[in-house]
Amino acid sequence: MTSLDDLPIRDDLRGLSPYGAPHLHLPVELNVNENTHPIPEDVARDIIESIARELLTVNRYPDREFTALRDSLAGYLGTGLTRENIWAANGSNEVLQQILMAFGGPGRSVLGFPPTYSMHSIIAAATGTRWIAGERDEGFEISPETAVDWIERTKPDIVFFCSPNNPTGTALGLDTIAAAYDATDGIVVVDEAYAEFTPSDEPDALSLLEGRPRLIVSRTMSKAFAFAGARLGYLAADPAVTDALRLVRLPYHLSALTQAAAVAALAHAPEMLAMVDDIKAQRDRIIDGLAELGYSPWPSASNFVLFGGVDDPEWLFDRLIERGIIIRNLSIPGHLRVSAGTEAETSAFLDAMRELTAQSVERPLGRIVP
Amino acid sequence: MTSLDDLPIRDDLRGLSPYGAPHLHLPVELNVNENTHPIPEDVARDIIESIARELLTVNRYPDREFTALRDSLAGYLGTGLTRENIWAANGSNEVLQQILMAFGGPGRSVLGFPPTYSMHSIIAAATGTRWIAGERDEGFEISPETAVDWIERTKPDIVFFCSPNNPTGTALGLDTIAAAYDATDGIVVVDEAYAEFTPSDEPDALSLLEGRPRLIVSRTMSKAFAFAGARLGYLAADPAVTDALRLVRLPYHLSALTQAAAVAALAHAPEMLAMVDDIKAQRDRIIDGLAELGYSPWPSASNFVLFGGVDDPEWLFDRLIERGIIIRNLSIPGHLRVSAGTEAETSAFLDAMRELTAQSVERPLGRIVP
Repeated sequence: MTSLDDLPIRDDLRGLSPYGAPHLHLPVELNVNENTHPIPEDVARDIIESIARELLTVNRYPDREFTALRDSLAGYLGTGLTRENIWAANGSNEVLQQILMAFGGPGRSVLGFPPTYSMHSIIAAATGTRWIAGERDEGFEISPETAVDWIERTKPDIVFFCSPNNPTGTALGLDTIAAAYDATDGIVVVDEAYAEFTPSDEPDALSLLEGRPRLIVSRTMSKAFAFAGARLGYLAADPAVTDALRLVRLPYHLSALTQAAAVAALAHAPEMLAMVDDIKAQRDRIIDGLAELGYSPWPSASNFVLFGGVDDPEWLFDRLIERGIIIRNLSIPGHLRVSAGTEAETSAFLDAMRELTAQSVERPLGRIVP
Repeated sequence: MTSLDDLPIRDDLRGLSPYGAPHLHLPVELNVNENTHPIPEDVARDIIESIARELLTVNRYPDREFTALRDSLAGYLGTGLTRENIWAANGSNEVLQQILMAFGGPGRSVLGFPPTYSMHSIIAAATGTRWIAGERDEGFEISPETAVDWIERTKPDIVFFCSPNNPTGTALGLDTIAAAYDATDGIVVVDEAYAEFTPSDEPDALSLLEGRPRLIVSRTMSKAFAFAGARLGYLAADPAVTDALRLVRLPYHLSALTQAAAVAALAHAPEMLAMVDDIKAQRDRIIDGLAELGYSPWPSASNFVLFGGVDDPEWLFDRLIERGIIIRNLSIPGHLRVSAGTEAETSAFLDAMRELTAQSVERPLGRIVP
């Protein structure tokens, strides 16, 4: 039998393993920061009708410029953006890949600040862009000074921020983004996949776009819109940025069905986002509940919580699985991450944690309440 | 206003223009080798029902391994293939891009044989893979000797064939593929996007897969399946090849809606393919009709015809547009390409050609019947 090592794959891929969040199906899945609420039935009906219309001409290539979708996304974001500012792809992973293909690649570098979304460095590797791992301040923050210092020392072609940051939940100050922009001649990307879960009175990076043609804000419908299965990531930026992405995107990369589904969902934005407040409430319940049990949850502006104070993350992760609950072990020492679910899912998680914390006090390797 | 040139794009992208088949909407569109027959209504209904089921859980990420879809594609191809042999992506463009990311890239090269599918060299450029333009024999053929000679002289890491070849329609002998495989230690890709339009008694490259772990046959549902809008390309190869592609694919690259639509369509394969025979008949009508008018159509094993003997392709292309008919000008001197449409579309094209050919005989720059 032929193995991967027998094939002439690129040298820098040898020995790597594919990205793989564990793909178990359990009663309570709080492991990949999905929105665990299904989309409303009447929205689903509208989506189905839109897709049915598209199927009549599915023998034809889709609109390569996905104009209706860009109009809808611009309308959703507001703040004076038009379709010329908008780009989209099959998930924000593909958006980020296209950015790296246009502005990164061999001989170029991208600065990121781990711990952060693991795909940032994976996509950098796949596009041949050198990954520079910056360091965060205490509490996973990045001050303007820290960002500027890293940029001045490493001269990256691209800077990746993630705000709120996955997996820590940390919101990034706009002053850091603005300072980073001024410190570089390169592209600055702010991955705002979880933007809708931040406190609603906080301005987001979209407010910085005006006058900053090298700034890109990426978003997704996967999280707040409960649309992870439909794969729709997008960005807002200067129109020149979208022109650059047209040079590297595959023609017809967005299917007619994807375009139709997303346009229909965006027409129901308020209804699609109705569960966001509930998710934020469950996130806060998790933070309070874990703190009560003696863990150290980090502040979160997102739909998940990273918590420290776990003496044996593997043990706890496995015990939760036995109880039908999957969360995420990201190999950050002493930490685990949990997504905010429905009220029932969140209760199931907190109940299991209460029970397991009591158990672990009695185990030699378990968690000792301080 | 910021222009593309003001942005720090990669040096090798400067001055390029995006891929762009003209995107006009006209009554008779025979320009991008689509299947001009809509999909059957009862199949559309099944697709809609499948998508409606998927929408219930569209808040969750899709099956990253698209197992049901790989099963369906293996079943459709037959010849002993299983899901382990199958990979898929959003159009065969993405399949080819993933192949080049895994086996090509900076410092590596891909040999192709122009005139061929224009995306082959574009995807090579976007992935930093050096494109080597081989030369075909008379009549756009590639003999085993020619292929081996080019491989021995240029030592490519990857060889791209396209059979039947776009835009010439030329079928490639299996002996050429087998000889090329033996002459290289690299990957050999046969892009069989139009395979279903070849004479049904001709074996295709799938029959060569056994014992050739470096051979990849790529296919698409865009053409014979009339599914261009749904974006589903796929490949068959040794399981080790699909392992390699897992290293470069973006996780969850295929949406739940795409997977559901394709599985439902594949369950109706015979019905979806029912128009293939009719399209082949229209293609042969085009070949006969153009030859009667004094043009030089090339033999075609596909759903389109490249024809020479056109003194002024721009003039003819523009006159057809005026008549509501769009075909394709690929800048091959003296040539144009036309896709086989429905019987009515094909008649409209041939009627217009008859009229325009009579006109052009009277024009100084027009076509002179030999």
